[in-house]
Amino acid sequence: MRRLAMALAALAAVAQTGTAQTDPATQAARGWRETHEREILREFMGLLAMPNLARDTAGIRANAVAVSALLEKRGVKTQLLEVAGAPPAVYGEILTPGATRTVIFYAHYDGQPLDPKEWATPPWEPVVRDRPLEKDGRVVTLPATGKIDPEWRIYARSASDDKAPIAVITAALDGLKAARIGLRSNIKFVFEGEEEAGSPHLAEIIRKYKDLLGSDAWLICDGPVHQSRRPQVVFGARGIATVDITLYGPNHELHSGHYGNWAPNPAMALARLLASMKDDDGKVLIEHYYDGILPLSETEKRAIAEAPDVDRDLMKELALGRTEGGGKKLVELLNYPSLNIRGMASARTGDKASNVLPATATASIDMRLVKGIDPATAAKRVIEHIRKQGYEIVESEPDAATRMRYPKLARVVVEPGGYSASRTSMDLPISQLVLRTAEAARGPIVKLPTMGGSVPLYMIEEILHAPTITVPIANHDNNQHSFNENIRIQNLWDGIDLMAALLAM
Amino acid sequence: MRRLAMALAALAAVAQTGTAQTDPATQAARGWRETHEREILREFMGLLAMPNLARDTAGIRANAVAVSALLEKRGVKTQLLEVAGAPPAVYGEILTPGATRTVIFYAHYDGQPLDPKEWATPPWEPVVRDRPLEKDGRVVTLPATGKIDPEWRIYARSASDDKAPIAVITAALDGLKAARIGLRSNIKFVFEGEEEAGSPHLAEIIRKYKDLLGSDAWLICDGPVHQSRRPQVVFGARGIATVDITLYGPNHELHSGHYGNWAPNPAMALARLLASMKDDDGKVLIEHYYDGILPLSETEKRAIAEAPDVDRDLMKELALGRTEGGGKKLVELLNYPSLNIRGMASARTGDKASNVLPATATASIDMRLVKGIDPATAAKRVIEHIRKQGYEIVESEPDAATRMRYPKLARVVVEPGGYSASRTSMDLPISQLVLRTAEAARGPIVKLPTMGGSVPLYMIEEILHAPTITVPIANHDNNQHSFNENIRIQNLWDGIDLMAALLAM
Repeated sequence: MRRLAMALAALAAVAQTGTAQTDPATQAARGWRETHEREILREFMGLLAMPNLARDTAGIRANAVAVSALLEKRGVKTQLLEVAGAPPAVYGEILTPGATRTVIFYAHYDGQPLDPKEWATPPWEPVVRDRPLEKDGRVVTLPATGKIDPEWRIYARSASDDKAPIAVITAALDGLKAARIGLRSNIKFVFEGEEEAGSPHLAEIIRKYKDLLGSDAWLICDGPVHQSRRPQVVFGARGIATVDITLYGPNHELHSGHYGNWAPNPAMALARLLASMKDDDGKVLIEHYYDGILPLSETEKRAIAEAPDVDRDLMKELALGRTEGGGKKLVELLNYPSLNIRGMASARTGDKASNVLPATATASIDMRLVKGIDPATAAKRVIEHIRKQGYEIVESEPDAATRMRYPKLARVVVEPGGYSASRTSMDLPISQLVLRTAEAARGPIVKLPTMGGSVPLYMIEEILHAPTITVPIANHDNNQHSFNENIRIQNLWDGIDLMAALLAM
Repeated sequence: MRRLAMALAALAAVAQTGTAQTDPATQAARGWRETHEREILREFMGLLAMPNLARDTAGIRANAVAVSALLEKRGVKTQLLEVAGAPPAVYGEILTPGATRTVIFYAHYDGQPLDPKEWATPPWEPVVRDRPLEKDGRVVTLPATGKIDPEWRIYARSASDDKAPIAVITAALDGLKAARIGLRSNIKFVFEGEEEAGSPHLAEIIRKYKDLLGSDAWLICDGPVHQSRRPQVVFGARGIATVDITLYGPNHELHSGHYGNWAPNPAMALARLLASMKDDDGKVLIEHYYDGILPLSETEKRAIAEAPDVDRDLMKELALGRTEGGGKKLVELLNYPSLNIRGMASARTGDKASNVLPATATASIDMRLVKGIDPATAAKRVIEHIRKQGYEIVESEPDAATRMRYPKLARVVVEPGGYSASRTSMDLPISQLVLRTAEAARGPIVKLPTMGGSVPLYMIEEILHAPTITVPIANHDNNQHSFNENIRIQNLWDGIDLMAALLAM
């Protein structure tokens, strides 16, 4: 870990001696932040204390109201964008007289589903730790005065993903106002409330409120910065499709002694089915899986080649003995579709294991998609593959007659809410402006054609014909989507620097 | 299901018109039972209301005390057989003046571990249902007077496995006493308290109390009757070995978008590893897995050939579309070793699934063993197979350095408490006596060389040189080892008939 720390320190030094800090908005926001760190963190932790699962109707609405209040406090005119059966999106706008450009800042205030039992401290009771939990970070109290150690981290659901941008933007607005730095663009905010549920209503919201949402570009404030800790600007995101597969054994769990090696075991069948999908090097074996991928442009290939190589350091950080993809770099592999088992279960393991032959076995698979492969196509290829392994496929829980009729039976459910990948050209004038502004705020920028994660950018492109550019702020090791999610405080400060510049550009 | 019911009714009719009910002890016990059904069930349900996990030190001891009290109430002299760190075994004896034979009745009062969330009603709050839960059985109250429907079932942990024999034996003793039927043999009882934990101290107990435990045979009161509902006497049991396998991905869960198809997925690796162990027809592919199996004798082969064929009906009952084993019958397959995934887990599925790349994946495997393959050998064959798939094998949680050193790393833990199979010759005089007695009590008997399940009979054979014969009473569809365990009331009544005859033989 020491080698990685040294490498990161060196890269951080580069970042600070580059062209950073020349942006007046950044300087103003930073000055303000340095004298208001406690207030910023306190307000942020108040927001993190609000449970924010999209399916918790009352809880998620309380979040929307709180987020609106944070914007209103900065003089932003807000409105809840409502469609039936969905958490509202929080909309805000600052109209700038004479502005010839409108920029929308997107973030989301809902968080990933979770199991509280897995968390070291409760997910909605934010705590500060003096180092990462994996390095035995202890819970500490913010000092009443003096500098706050920027390596400390805040632990809570959505600390990174994706309430941090909301805290950072409001702090940046405070800093600009305190320094009386005027804006040049019309600024709009769209903070969504069900991104982690797959944004099932975002298209409907965008269509309904199309008149409000005119812009020259959407800046997507989500995702982590580069693993080297250097700031990055990303011009696309992978799409996503999720498929749940359930295989069936006997209609209830059986004593494994009395029926073992006579009744077929669904966990073993699932293992065989999943194993047929990928080879040992991670290559997907499903027919046509890689068909249709839109090739990268020369600019995009160059950006990938120039991206810092952090693979070896990342392997150490994650204690990996190998990687997939035949030696290709992580940034390169992100431009291919993935097939990932995100969860697998059959009967029980550990303390609760008992000697049974399980009744069912389930795997949940997510596929990250790239330009040229839409979610329906990806799901269809998986389903076709399962069928080729001899399975009859049903969509709902099969009855006894169905279970008896087919020697091999799979229930395959394609989760609604999948979406396509997107990729904005790096050569557009707005792309160039964002890159220049970010570099003025934060120094040399890592430019990537796509992030590995998924945000529903394609809807914005399809419905509003607006380009999207992603400007992430979270640390890469933030446990996003898992338990013990956190954000490093320095990433909040860097985020304020960046957002101030982008708001004022 | 109707066809199965008709087939069962026909078989039951055969059972009742056979040589059944000619045994005077059986007739006495039955007469007594018919006038005391409520008392018998009430006492039984009182015992079922006591939580009985072997690892719950206080709870399991309370069970031992209660079981002793039930025996003392029938004038049986009892004693707790104690060794350090184990639940006591309850010992009881009835010495019969002039007896030339001593028979030990074995049962166990502890139950399988469980997850209360999976149960329709709490596992230690016994309820009566008017039919199986799978057929929408409702909770009913025992009628204050009149006949109790013998198709009703009692639901609770250990209702079948293995507190039922304790209730049945005590009721049989009551019946014999009421009819003043004297015993001919010395009778001893050994009711174990950690069978479901693999009987880790049974050998120690047997050795320590060897002087108490002289006998001509042990009758093992455990396991289900034949799936045709006909009574069965079983002359052996499969052994067992349990192996837990954990594979490693990154040292914590990762965002599946940012790292998917770069960081190796341990669930996919586990699928590949498990799939390498068995072919599509259930044949184990692990090298030498079937080596050393002791062949069946001619008597044993004949018994298997004569056993009722219930496979097609069982397939319907269990809603199976196929079976493993290349068309061999269940009773035949039980004479081969099994390899069963009893549980499998990686990250989360269903409502709690999130888009992660899991950090670990675990499978728990149990192997049912036959004469000629001991548990250490079976475990070694599995470990050797895993090694041949390229895995470095560790026994404890690997540190970061170990995880990085080996591209493929498996933690393999062989659970203590495995045991060997056993098989008593059907031609021994005591075997013949038990068969004759059981037939006089219950009509035609299904005779099997082995049951599919495992009970630690081999210890009795090795240490005490006593033969073991298994006389099960539970219904085969009792959900033993799973949630919603139950016993059909008629099986209790049949059990009383059988035990009375065996006690008085």
